[in-house]
Amino acid sequence: MRVLGVDTGSRITGYGVIDIDGADCVFVDCGIIRVNAADTLPYRLNAIHKRMAEVIESLQPDEAVFESVFHSANVQSALKLGHARGVCIQTAAAANLPVYEYSPAEVKAAVTGYGRSEKPQVQQMVWALLKLTEEPETYDASDALAVAICHAHTHRFKKAMVSGR
Amino acid sequence: MRVLGVDTGSRITGYGVIDIDGADCVFVDCGIIRVNAADTLPYRLNAIHKRMAEVIESLQPDEAVFESVFHSANVQSALKLGHARGVCIQTAAAANLPVYEYSPAEVKAAVTGYGRSEKPQVQQMVWALLKLTEEPETYDASDALAVAICHAHTHRFKKAMVSGR
Repeated sequence: MRVLGVDTGSRITGYGVIDIDGADCVFVDCGIIRVNAADTLPYRLNAIHKRMAEVIESLQPDEAVFESVFHSANVQSALKLGHARGVCIQTAAAANLPVYEYSPAEVKAAVTGYGRSEKPQVQQMVWALLKLTEEPETYDASDALAVAICHAHTHRFKKAMVSGR
Repeated sequence: MRVLGVDTGSRITGYGVIDIDGADCVFVDCGIIRVNAADTLPYRLNAIHKRMAEVIESLQPDEAVFESVFHSANVQSALKLGHARGVCIQTAAAANLPVYEYSPAEVKAAVTGYGRSEKPQVQQMVWALLKLTEEPETYDASDALAVAICHAHTHRFKKAMVSGR
């Protein structure tokens, strides 16, 4: 089974794709979708949608996984993040992918064994688990891979936020 | 020129379409997109996208107008609203509509002459200005018409958040 992990931000959205083979996670691809703050909001949202649809079309994941959001600096930043996140979730739903969601603590616990790990620890474990020698482009891409790995470890026990109701 | 006004909510999104002919605003259509809270987030977002795309396809507006959001009860409600709003804005951008945004105070001032009017006053003025005899389905639809009317009154002075940069 092929899983697309997504780490959405208002400026940078990371994605990471792995194949789950029993207990093994095999790296397929990862990258970031970066939008230019100088572009308008509609342009940026449509750019995120188009690139996310291309990633899904070219890599053909079976399921999509997102990190849930509980905290945000303030209402305005939550709204901005929500815009980009809504577009990514809708794009996955439009491609008929079942969509799952995990909390940051669930992701950290699944990857490092500890729900309050720091970013560098999560990144190191992602590289080790996926036997990566090259560094994923940024933390955003490794965070996306971490969400996908979390899904590999726990999806049997998790109910999908299934796209088709 | 035909204008689509949108009033986004996480549960109910209102839309209203008017034709602008000089100083005149002519009612074309309005309605609401209601999603079921029992459905999953991906399903709801995709339902909003599909219905919004249908409205644009069938009514062929030249421009889309949204109310800006400054306040929200809390981060979680801002995030929820952002999901739906991001999907609606992206759908308009994907249809190559220039997208404009007005603050609630701008909308109220344009429709009633007073930036702090209450909802019933805005609704009454919308009906009067558009010579409507039937009641728009809900406040959400009349709020969407109000945003479109605001655009009719002020768009000459407003720079678009143009879709194509």
